[in-house]
Amino acid sequence: MIDLYTWPTPNGRKISIALEEFAAPYAVHPVNLQNEEQLDEDFLAISPNNKIPAIVDRENGQTLMESGAILIYLADKFDRFWGVERYETMQWLMLQMAGIGPMLGQVHYFSKYNSGKAPYAEERFYNEALRLYGVLDRRLAKGEFLCGSYSIADMATWPWISRFEWQQIDLEAFPNVRRWYRQIAGRAAVQQGYHVPTYVNDIPMP
Amino acid sequence: MIDLYTWPTPNGRKISIALEEFAAPYAVHPVNLQNEEQLDEDFLAISPNNKIPAIVDRENGQTLMESGAILIYLADKFDRFWGVERYETMQWLMLQMAGIGPMLGQVHYFSKYNSGKAPYAEERFYNEALRLYGVLDRRLAKGEFLCGSYSIADMATWPWISRFEWQQIDLEAFPNVRRWYRQIAGRAAVQQGYHVPTYVNDIPMP
Repeated sequence: MIDLYTWPTPNGRKISIALEEFAAPYAVHPVNLQNEEQLDEDFLAISPNNKIPAIVDRENGQTLMESGAILIYLADKFDRFWGVERYETMQWLMLQMAGIGPMLGQVHYFSKYNSGKAPYAEERFYNEALRLYGVLDRRLAKGEFLCGSYSIADMATWPWISRFEWQQIDLEAFPNVRRWYRQIAGRAAVQQGYHVPTYVNDIPMP
Repeated sequence: MIDLYTWPTPNGRKISIALEEFAAPYAVHPVNLQNEEQLDEDFLAISPNNKIPAIVDRENGQTLMESGAILIYLADKFDRFWGVERYETMQWLMLQMAGIGPMLGQVHYFSKYNSGKAPYAEERFYNEALRLYGVLDRRLAKGEFLCGSYSIADMATWPWISRFEWQQIDLEAFPNVRRWYRQIAGRAAVQQGYHVPTYVNDIPMP
C-alpha cells in the first residue's frame, strides 16, 4: 500500500495517474494547497521542500518527494513503463521536470494569476512555452509516444499539457502533441487519476 | 570514452565535475553559447532541446541530453556516488533539476541580465531563491552532504550555488550551505571540472 499526499495540480496528477496505470493499491491524503496545508510540520517531515506530491510506501517505509523521483521509483518497483530504453526515457522525464514543468508553471503564474504585473516576464515564458511545445511536436512526429512505448515520460508531461488553455496554446499549431494528448486522455487510468483527490473540472479536450 | 558537449555554465559544470569525480576518460567538445552553436543541426541530433550538456558514450553509442539524466546514467555505469540510499538521492537530484536550477536560473536572467525590466519577477525569483537556500540549509544542518555521503545530488547542486554572487545571496545567512560549499570546492575533481571546456573565473569563495 502506498500513501499518496497530493492535490489536483499537474504535478499531483502525474502520480495519481501513474498509480492507476501501475494498478498499485494506494491511499489518498489530500493536502489542500488553498488552506496552505503543505506548510504543516507533519508534511514537512515527508516533503522537506513543502510541495506535493509525496509518497510513503508502507511496504518498506520509503518516503519520497518530487514527482520525477516518485515516477522513477514506481517504474523500478513495478518494472513497467520504462519505454523502449531506460535512459532515453530518463532524459525526456528530465526535460519535463527541468523545463516543461517549471516554464509552463511560470506561464500560469504570470499570465493567468498575475496578468499585467510583469509583461516582460509574461512574454519570456510564453515564448519558452511555444519553444517547448515545438520540441515536443518534433519528437512526437517521430513516434506515437515520447519514448517508443507509453512511459513515465508521457505520464509526467501529459498533465502539464492538459493546461494548454491556461497557457493560451492553440494545439492546432502542434498537431502531433494534440494527437498524443487526445490518445492519452482516452486511457481509463488517466481519466481515473485526473480526478484525485477531488474533481475540479473535466479533462479539457482540444 | 565519453564525448562531452558542454560550456562553462552551472549545468555544463555538473557533468565535467562528475566525469572528473568518476575518473572517466572523456573528450570535450565546446558548444559556444555566445556563438549560438547549441542551435546547430548537428547538435540538435544529440540534444533535441538544443541545450548543453549532452554526452555520447562511445562504448555503447548511448546519446543523452539533460544533466540530471546524464548524472543518473554515469552513477549507474560506474556504480558510485549514489549516496546512502538510491531514491533519497534521486529526490534531492530532482529538487535541483526541477527547483534550484530553474528558479536560480530565473534570478540570473531577470536580476543579472535584465535588471529593471520586470521588478515583480525579480522579487518573485529572489524570494524563491531565499526559500530554496533555506531548504538546503536545513537539510545540510543534518549531515555533511545532501544524502549521507557525497553524491550526484551534491554534484548537481554545487555549481548552481557557486553563482551565489549573481543571486545576491549572502552565504553568511546560510552557514550550513556555506560550510558544504567550501568543502566541495576543495575537491580536486571539482577544481578540475569547473574549468571545462575553458577557464572563465576562479571558483568564488565565500
